[in-house]
Amino acid sequence: MITKEKVHSILKGYDKKKIKIATICSHTSLQLFHGARQEGMKTIGICLEKYKKTYDAFPFGKPDEYIIVDNYKDIPADELAEKNAIVIPHGSFVEYTGKNLEELAVPMFGNRLSLMWEGDRNKLFKWMRDSGLQIPELFTPETIDRPCIVKLPGAKGGKGYTIVSSPAEFKKKVKEEKFIIQEYIPGVRVYPHYFYSPLSKGGYEVRNGSLELMSIDRRLESNIDESYRATLAGVTVEPSFTVIGNEPVILRESLVREIMEMGANVVESSYRLFQGMPGPFCIEMICTENMKFYVFEISARIVAGTNLYPLGSPYTCYSYKEPMSTGRRIAREIKRAAKLNKLEKVIY
Amino acid sequence: MITKEKVHSILKGYDKKKIKIATICSHTSLQLFHGARQEGMKTIGICLEKYKKTYDAFPFGKPDEYIIVDNYKDIPADELAEKNAIVIPHGSFVEYTGKNLEELAVPMFGNRLSLMWEGDRNKLFKWMRDSGLQIPELFTPETIDRPCIVKLPGAKGGKGYTIVSSPAEFKKKVKEEKFIIQEYIPGVRVYPHYFYSPLSKGGYEVRNGSLELMSIDRRLESNIDESYRATLAGVTVEPSFTVIGNEPVILRESLVREIMEMGANVVESSYRLFQGMPGPFCIEMICTENMKFYVFEISARIVAGTNLYPLGSPYTCYSYKEPMSTGRRIAREIKRAAKLNKLEKVIY
Amino acid sequence: MITKEKVHSILKGYDKKKIKIATICSHTSLQLFHGARQEGMKTIGICLEKYKKTYDAFPFGKPDEYIIVDNYKDIPADELAEKNAIVIPHGSFVEYTGKNLEELAVPMFGNRLSLMWEGDRNKLFKWMRDSGLQIPELFTPETIDRPCIVKLPGAKGGKGYTIVSSPAEFKKKVKEEKFIIQEYIPGVRVYPHYFYSPLSKGGYEVRNGSLELMSIDRRLESNIDESYRATLAGVTVEPSFTVIGNEPVILRESLVREIMEMGANVVESSYRLFQGMPGPFCIEMICTENMKFYVFEISARIVAGTNLYPLGSPYTCYSYKEPMSTGRRIAREIKRAAKLNKLEKVIY
Repeated sequence: MITKEKVHSILKGYDKKKIKIATICSHTSLQLFHGARQEGMKTIGICLEKYKKTYDAFPFGKPDEYIIVDNYKDIPADELAEKNAIVIPHGSFVEYTGKNLEELAVPMFGNRLSLMWEGDRNKLFKWMRDSGLQIPELFTPETIDRPCIVKLPGAKGGKGYTIVSSPAEFKKKVKEEKFIIQEYIPGVRVYPHYFYSPLSKGGYEVRNGSLELMSIDRRLESNIDESYRATLAGVTVEPSFTVIGNEPVILRESLVREIMEMGANVVESSYRLFQGMPGPFCIEMICTENMKFYVFEISARIVAGTNLYPLGSPYTCYSYKEPMSTGRRIAREIKRAAKLNKLEKVIY
Repeated sequence: MITKEKVHSILKGYDKKKIKIATICSHTSLQLFHGARQEGMKTIGICLEKYKKTYDAFPFGKPDEYIIVDNYKDIPADELAEKNAIVIPHGSFVEYTGKNLEELAVPMFGNRLSLMWEGDRNKLFKWMRDSGLQIPELFTPETIDRPCIVKLPGAKGGKGYTIVSSPAEFKKKVKEEKFIIQEYIPGVRVYPHYFYSPLSKGGYEVRNGSLELMSIDRRLESNIDESYRATLAGVTVEPSFTVIGNEPVILRESLVREIMEMGANVVESSYRLFQGMPGPFCIEMICTENMKFYVFEISARIVAGTNLYPLGSPYTCYSYKEPMSTGRRIAREIKRAAKLNKLEKVIY
Repeated sequence: MITKEKVHSILKGYDKKKIKIATICSHTSLQLFHGARQEGMKTIGICLEKYKKTYDAFPFGKPDEYIIVDNYKDIPADELAEKNAIVIPHGSFVEYTGKNLEELAVPMFGNRLSLMWEGDRNKLFKWMRDSGLQIPELFTPETIDRPCIVKLPGAKGGKGYTIVSSPAEFKKKVKEEKFIIQEYIPGVRVYPHYFYSPLSKGGYEVRNGSLELMSIDRRLESNIDESYRATLAGVTVEPSFTVIGNEPVILRESLVREIMEMGANVVESSYRLFQGMPGPFCIEMICTENMKFYVFEISARIVAGTNLYPLGSPYTCYSYKEPMSTGRRIAREIKRAAKLNKLEKVIY
């Protein structure tokens, strides 16, 4: 894996007044380009030729400049570095670049290590446990004694998740070799979106920095999220969990306290385990009937649910006078870090 | 049916600087009046006396002027024409005026023919097929061999839809003579709202014009959309599909590409079949677990789901600096067409 | 209970130009403080020490000043009165202060009696019936002959609700002594948020004042609202109704008429029964497949669903040019009443 020193040495060559925001045209890129534009920064979209047309449909969401590639595995690091680009690694970026992400010789917003911790199930569980989060019980194929959800590795938007209730059912349904088996917890899912700034003071202080609650969403998963319609129609469906979109939600104000604490604990733990996590993240959780939160995942980067709020959310208006998306918040952090000559604190 | 030439000859008599927006006080009229007001245009609400009070509750949503009628079948075409009114045909307008719509001697925004194609099931399916859209398989009462949804004609907000799984069940449940029988497709419904402008260039170009994605909603249907609550409570419910409202959703950014393509194909086909479709439309669809879109209907006019976004949506902010609703977009198109002396391109 | 005269005599001592908004830091307090700030008013948060940190995370949502208490039962009435504070009684305020609310010697926004009518099931049903609202049939434990929902007293966010279908099941499941048993009505829940101003003229007139529709939400209840996911996963869940959050919805425009009428009837009845109800309220209802509304509760104060709309809703933009939350609307009403020297009309 490329060292932080190497990345920072590339960053040293940058013209700090002409920094550009770059990412792959997918996932949250409209929001990221839009947010950067609101902050007066230039943007670069890494794009397949055939997708360019869609981005051109959104004059304030499209990038200022395209780098057309044949394959997302081939991110042109040198070209990006020459253009003073800082890359924002969103979910599709992480998925498309795969192992290449580790060696990508271009400055990246956030702590690149956090993406390794998110992507490796063992590391992820260590992180969640170290954060003191309540997590659903784990099983091996042999010990399954209740309804469990079987998840395959990688950020593939829930595709391929399976429900099993016994070792026999597991054997029948799961052919993959890598998986985790988690107890199914009934409740209502909520996905709070956070932003941690090591440059800010005041507010909700964590480790010499400040934690913000940006917004909350709920994922729309096909076919499970309208399965009740099929059921009532007499159609038997096998549950599937493909994330196809998002819908806005808010939480009871009294639950925001615990949501903030959980976010703070995840940040604290990130410092203990891998030197911190500047930037956006999300904790995927279930809220039970007793208002206990069970966490099933952490995303150590911007999540697609933030796309609901390109002009701010029912939470950001309590922190900003201007419309503040997570995309804009990222651009602002980079701009501020550049101005304070502290880019090293938010880049790897 | 009134000819386009006749409508355009009425339009010729209009004072192009004093054009007013008129519609029936229902469906999306608050949004339409509000949007016209934002664009500096005057508005006329065709209204039953008893409903006036509700509109007066919304000072920026009510029309500037009411025309009180006893019955929506009696749209006062002459009075509207005298007042330089262009009528916006929303869903309730189409439903309430019925066959009278075809002869209504007043300029109407969009292509009146598109409403005929939307309202006639045979034409609609021809249109959907010509657009290359994937549609659920159709059945006759005799061939039903799986769960199907039986739909009655007309834009009645889902009222009267029925689920059947066999010829016998069909016979028992359906007494009407006109219907269509569609395979029930499990997945999650999404309703993207488009706007096609034959006057715009750039952006997502289709047939010398430009296609915009305005917003997306999901319909709330009673009782099906909370049927899982009833089921768990031990209440047996027969599924019904009465649209009572809407909730906001967004789609994965990578699905927006296909959404745009589908919209473009529908516009292209409208030119092949009936000389195009300027203005707003919606494609009603299901997104399956494999992220395939099955289309069950097209609405060739503004849909009620746009009422979620009177100040713009998570998509319009990528195209407009100002809050842009579909209602406002319509007013802007009319204003622009009038200025360019091209009203004929968007009126029939 | 403290008399209105006593409260008004305290109010007489206030400096009308320095009125502050005070409430307990919970429920809708971020919105209330934010809204007051937008109207240029100062705010006081009554807060447990341990919760202060969460509010400090939101610079425009936190109160200008905290009064730290050990227990919410001990609202410092004298201190509040000295500070020219008007208390806003939100749902948690009512729950936490309990019986103390009746004697609390500090001016409170709205009619304190309405909270008594909301909190007492017998009074509430008298009010709903007097308002001419359609309500679900009530049962005694012996007469239960269909699926019913058993509710316990107090504003506890749905916690402890139970479903029963027979006298035997009731006996087995319900151990409490106070409860009501309501027929379970299938449909889709909607919660319209109203504001009634006795100071305004025009708009939707009711009793020399004016009724506004602020917004609509749907509550998210755990575990019932994702129970279909558990069911499909093969997990047997006992339905529970703990409100954990809210999601935005709108209604068909044609249903807004009836929603306004219902609100007007509730206000009219409040005058007949307990001298009116200035300020915000909510009618909790189910919309059936036949578009009939069944009401199961009235909240005679701001509800948490309004937290979805701190910058206004798809309805308020039709009444206000500026972003208008219910919290801001309250502050504006108080400011206006103070200016007109009519605070007595909106305070008890």
